[in-house]
Amino acid sequence: MGSKVADLPHPFDPLSLDEIAHAIGLVRKAHGEVFFNVVSLQEPRKAEMTAWLENPEIAPRPKRIADVVVIAPGGKVYDGLVDLADSKIIHWEHAEGQQPIITMEELQLVEHIVRKDPKVIEQCILSGVAPEDMHKVYCDPWTIGYDERFGNNVRLQQALMYYRPEVDNCQYQYPLDFCPIYDADKGEIIHIDIPKIRRPLSTAPPMDYIPAAVEARGGYRNNLKPINITQPEGVSFKLDGRWLEWQNWKFHIGFNYREGIVLNDITFNDKGTVRPIFYRLSLAEMVVPYGNPEAPHHRKHALDQGEYGAGYMTNSLSLGCDCKGSIHYLDAEFPTRNGGVTTIKNAICIHEEDAGILFKHSDFRDDSVIVTRGRKLIIQQIFTAANYEYVVAWTFHQDGTIAPEIKLTGILNTYAMLEDEDTHGWGTQVYPGVNAHNHQHLFCLRIDANVDGPNNTVFVGDAVPSPHPVGSPENFYGNGFYNKRTKLATEGESKTDYNGATSRTWEIANTNKLNPYSKKPVSYKLVSREVPGLMPKEGSLVWKRASFARHAVHVTKYRDDELWPAGRHVPQTSGEPSRGLAEWIGDGTTSIDNTDIVLWHTFGVTHFPSPEDFPVMPAEPMMLLLRPRNFFAGNPVMDVPPSYCSTPSQVAAGKLGVLDATDKLSTLAFANGAVRVNGTNGAAAASCCSSKTNGVNGH
Amino acid sequence: MGSKVADLPHPFDPLSLDEIAHAIGLVRKAHGEVFFNVVSLQEPRKAEMTAWLENPEIAPRPKRIADVVVIAPGGKVYDGLVDLADSKIIHWEHAEGQQPIITMEELQLVEHIVRKDPKVIEQCILSGVAPEDMHKVYCDPWTIGYDERFGNNVRLQQALMYYRPEVDNCQYQYPLDFCPIYDADKGEIIHIDIPKIRRPLSTAPPMDYIPAAVEARGGYRNNLKPINITQPEGVSFKLDGRWLEWQNWKFHIGFNYREGIVLNDITFNDKGTVRPIFYRLSLAEMVVPYGNPEAPHHRKHALDQGEYGAGYMTNSLSLGCDCKGSIHYLDAEFPTRNGGVTTIKNAICIHEEDAGILFKHSDFRDDSVIVTRGRKLIIQQIFTAANYEYVVAWTFHQDGTIAPEIKLTGILNTYAMLEDEDTHGWGTQVYPGVNAHNHQHLFCLRIDANVDGPNNTVFVGDAVPSPHPVGSPENFYGNGFYNKRTKLATEGESKTDYNGATSRTWEIANTNKLNPYSKKPVSYKLVSREVPGLMPKEGSLVWKRASFARHAVHVTKYRDDELWPAGRHVPQTSGEPSRGLAEWIGDGTTSIDNTDIVLWHTFGVTHFPSPEDFPVMPAEPMMLLLRPRNFFAGNPVMDVPPSYCSTPSQVAAGKLGVLDATDKLSTLAFANGAVRVNGTNGAAAASCCSSKTNGVNGH
Repeated sequence: MGSKVADLPHPFDPLSLDEIAHAIGLVRKAHGEVFFNVVSLQEPRKAEMTAWLENPEIAPRPKRIADVVVIAPGGKVYDGLVDLADSKIIHWEHAEGQQPIITMEELQLVEHIVRKDPKVIEQCILSGVAPEDMHKVYCDPWTIGYDERFGNNVRLQQALMYYRPEVDNCQYQYPLDFCPIYDADKGEIIHIDIPKIRRPLSTAPPMDYIPAAVEARGGYRNNLKPINITQPEGVSFKLDGRWLEWQNWKFHIGFNYREGIVLNDITFNDKGTVRPIFYRLSLAEMVVPYGNPEAPHHRKHALDQGEYGAGYMTNSLSLGCDCKGSIHYLDAEFPTRNGGVTTIKNAICIHEEDAGILFKHSDFRDDSVIVTRGRKLIIQQIFTAANYEYVVAWTFHQDGTIAPEIKLTGILNTYAMLEDEDTHGWGTQVYPGVNAHNHQHLFCLRIDANVDGPNNTVFVGDAVPSPHPVGSPENFYGNGFYNKRTKLATEGESKTDYNGATSRTWEIANTNKLNPYSKKPVSYKLVSREVPGLMPKEGSLVWKRASFARHAVHVTKYRDDELWPAGRHVPQTSGEPSRGLAEWIGDGTTSIDNTDIVLWHTFGVTHFPSPEDFPVMPAEPMMLLLRPRNFFAGNPVMDVPPSYCSTPSQVAAGKLGVLDATDKLSTLAFANGAVRVNGTNGAAAASCCSSKTNGVNGH
Repeated sequence: MGSKVADLPHPFDPLSLDEIAHAIGLVRKAHGEVFFNVVSLQEPRKAEMTAWLENPEIAPRPKRIADVVVIAPGGKVYDGLVDLADSKIIHWEHAEGQQPIITMEELQLVEHIVRKDPKVIEQCILSGVAPEDMHKVYCDPWTIGYDERFGNNVRLQQALMYYRPEVDNCQYQYPLDFCPIYDADKGEIIHIDIPKIRRPLSTAPPMDYIPAAVEARGGYRNNLKPINITQPEGVSFKLDGRWLEWQNWKFHIGFNYREGIVLNDITFNDKGTVRPIFYRLSLAEMVVPYGNPEAPHHRKHALDQGEYGAGYMTNSLSLGCDCKGSIHYLDAEFPTRNGGVTTIKNAICIHEEDAGILFKHSDFRDDSVIVTRGRKLIIQQIFTAANYEYVVAWTFHQDGTIAPEIKLTGILNTYAMLEDEDTHGWGTQVYPGVNAHNHQHLFCLRIDANVDGPNNTVFVGDAVPSPHPVGSPENFYGNGFYNKRTKLATEGESKTDYNGATSRTWEIANTNKLNPYSKKPVSYKLVSREVPGLMPKEGSLVWKRASFARHAVHVTKYRDDELWPAGRHVPQTSGEPSRGLAEWIGDGTTSIDNTDIVLWHTFGVTHFPSPEDFPVMPAEPMMLLLRPRNFFAGNPVMDVPPSYCSTPSQVAAGKLGVLDATDKLSTLAFANGAVRVNGTNGAAAASCCSSKTNGVNGH
């Protein structure tokens, strides 16, 4: 068990091991032996929290409440709330017909049962697995998504089946073609989906990425020289509890089983004025629909956060490996199924990186120049959803930009195919006998906005030409264009799609505060270019279950507990009615004009696999920006020390007083003459940013 | 003058100082005193070059030819070609009614003349400049673009006027409202455009980014600890002449006055087979149209490469400043106006960077894991186009991806406004009296494709749902979707726009070679998401002059000398008829199916300025990808040594044989306990990638 909690936890802090254990103890006392699915912080009610943040001396400190989900014998699901200070269960309710998140422990159980099930064994033998090789049969258990044959009163998993000739082989190259259905309450296989066309186990030789396989193919390349990244004087950020301060930013770093990293109360110190920007940022949900319409592949549309939890699936990160430099880690603490507690060490890493040129300008008249290098701060986690890994990096820039970045890596989900079978365009043969289906990764970024205060308004911005024709007095030469701003006045109106042709952006504005110069409302702009539409059609199962993915943006009025846009309990929802966002928006008449709002942004990629992605995928990055626009009265990074600066007067005076803080560790690549094969060797670099020409002077 | 050329230059190499001087000498001898505008390599004819590259022993070595442009007395422009080995002018032609590129030297001249012109002085006084302060008046001379009042027989510049109270002030905060027109041949101001509404010189106090100004506002922040990036064992790339080899890549690095960096003969060594990918890559043109329709602002639409040259405007880079680590530089060599030669030291920098996680996968069953870090190679230049700087980085990844990246920084072009005057949406008041007009930065990437051979075909890829409705047998659950591929068969058909809704990509395929597994043609895919349409309307001046910007993609059959899509001589083209791409495509009937093709891709950003961009703009990055798809038979980076790897059998055996090449220089941020303010301090990081839980084991 963890160390004693010395200080009172901050109301935003995740539950500590002690708090989790305390909640578990209280629930056990009242309700006996149950399986613990969730014991997590119920986030403070916003009104109370805001009052306390503003006036911690006067306003009451928000209580620590544990949000609890348990599965009681008979598969009965209960939602509960536990007041930790009062040691009291304050809410307890049977969640009829709802299935809570499937934990890693539950997933682990299925494979062992699958291997012993006689009907599964029969299918394995039919597929070409030797009966004595059942220990070489593996499964990735997924929630069933939704299957109308079974409904949602029985807790189910579907077992995507694979074979590994050797334990170290990548199993995704030997998929099996049938799909057992597992009943969690009974702990047994209740059905097997068997395709009409059978596809026996592939006999292709393994293609692996493990060292032994690479060695057998000729070994590792040995032509990469180390790049060392060090911070001998330490890092530039400070942590006070879970409050991080860096380069005018301040925010609280939370973490939960569901969303993973949660950032709260993000502010920017603008020359002494602490300005709020976001009350809360998180990745609130995601969906990965696969595009093969043949049943049962339609069930492959993981809502990974609501169905498994980006927190529960998070990796334990390690120094010099997942990140380099000077790193700080934060752990994550969770309940276990049987009522214990567990820690994922190093669930979050925090570090800085050089960000290249922050700004530069030279005057072409005289070569006076300023070059300033930027820095970024990264709060990162990596979670593994069976085959895929998601690297989630919340990146903060000095100029007020927040750039959430996601990298996809790991392994494609695969299905069996006869060698060179027609995939009908729904997938790609990435290796003989291996069909990787088309899929999307759609993430829902939840932006609880607080741009210079709680009352915000969202505008769509479209770059459009002047309405006046070429040759008209208003647009004679035809070059006029402007940013057409459209206010989203109600939740219904807020349902907006991306428009590549107009480089559409969404502006989260505070219309009560105008920029002193532009006289436009202070705002943060959502600049996001990886915004594919949801490919599953209107009315499809995915469309119904993942209502957040129907549009690039939805905006809702803030309401406590509206955190997860596919609903609280996601597994086995039918989408009739849609839970979460569609339910909250309802008829869409609620005003979102100049009030406390939440913007939900769905972005991601559409992935048509290719052999390059197999057997493990080189990381594919995607990024979006939250940029201050008309928020500051000027460039907020002018006080970042330049690497080099010479002003026109200094240049004219022969460079007296030139500021030169250039990094002195950088070297010429071939200064020692050892490496370059041919040609003139490393003439000394020009002294920093000096006059650019020699020879006959052109100026 | 430079050193003697010992070896024969490679036919792709830029002209050396000696070669430039030799060409100049020959031209002078034949044509007397002329101004030298261009003396640059005429690139080898592709057929000859390809034959020689394939068979250097047998095929004749392509000749070194200098492409020369001069301005003779009376403003007469001549195009010439000089055979350097034979010391012979092989082509000489009067370029009637055409204006060649405006060199930095020509730009420099204007300001001095403007300051002495009585009519300009008169306007300055009217604006509020004291007569004795004319030395504080500056101008950014631009080509005139095209002005129908003056046509193109007279060589013109328009002088965008500014005032600097002190020499070190940023001039863009004090724009003047009138615009003198300079005649280069006469060396005098021939006209002044004066607006109807006069806007006197701003009296706002300066807002500067120079050290003295920052100090006066309270000084630089002192809370950034150094990040050191070092390569003690040297770099991982090799250079032989200008041929670079790195991580299976090999290519030639050229440079010219116009495009700056040119990359030739890009190949990838795929397990011993050298596979061609691109014959030539460059940024071939750009246009920056401004959106204020009021004359004469329509003339602000810089075609910076064709009008000034990304090579001529390039910065002299410096170590530890523009880039960090171990850097190699290449110089650029040019003629001067009067027939000298000049060198821009360090015009190109070459260096590696850590690229974060290249791939990762953990098995959720047992925490076996592989983490491999990536590396990238960057070939970079920075050029300054008067107010703006463009950082152009050609980034190569180990997995076969090429990612051209451009960062915009520098200073906004500004115009005078009355304080709080209505900008009518065409611009933003970024500071009192400073109107920054809306504008676009549109770049044209020229891709001379050679994907596994010269005969390539381009397909558009659109992600689209199955055509069958929800509930139909073919798409019962509605989730079907696929990549709809459309062949671009002719130059006319190739004119295609971006489609955000379908995440459109363009696939440069070799239909003669199929991937062994996917059976799809080997290809490189253009993945580009920053693709705003051209805002100036069809038929507008910009639309006519910059025909490449009318569509996101054009494809042409390869023809020698079709290098620059706005034409060879760009200043003062009227667009009637359009030069360059529109002219080459003509009626569009030429086949581009399975032949030697060039893809022209226009991408960029639409910029609505805000006060954050002033007085100097934090760098705004944009990136696109050229990705191998169905090109390799598998992930091409499996042989990059992992930082850490443990296989399931190793985990089961208690981690014997685990591969651990983790970077040992990384440290815990608060290991010394010195910095963290509060809370538990840096518990030791988990040993690399070890079992992730402690406490009660959840697995």
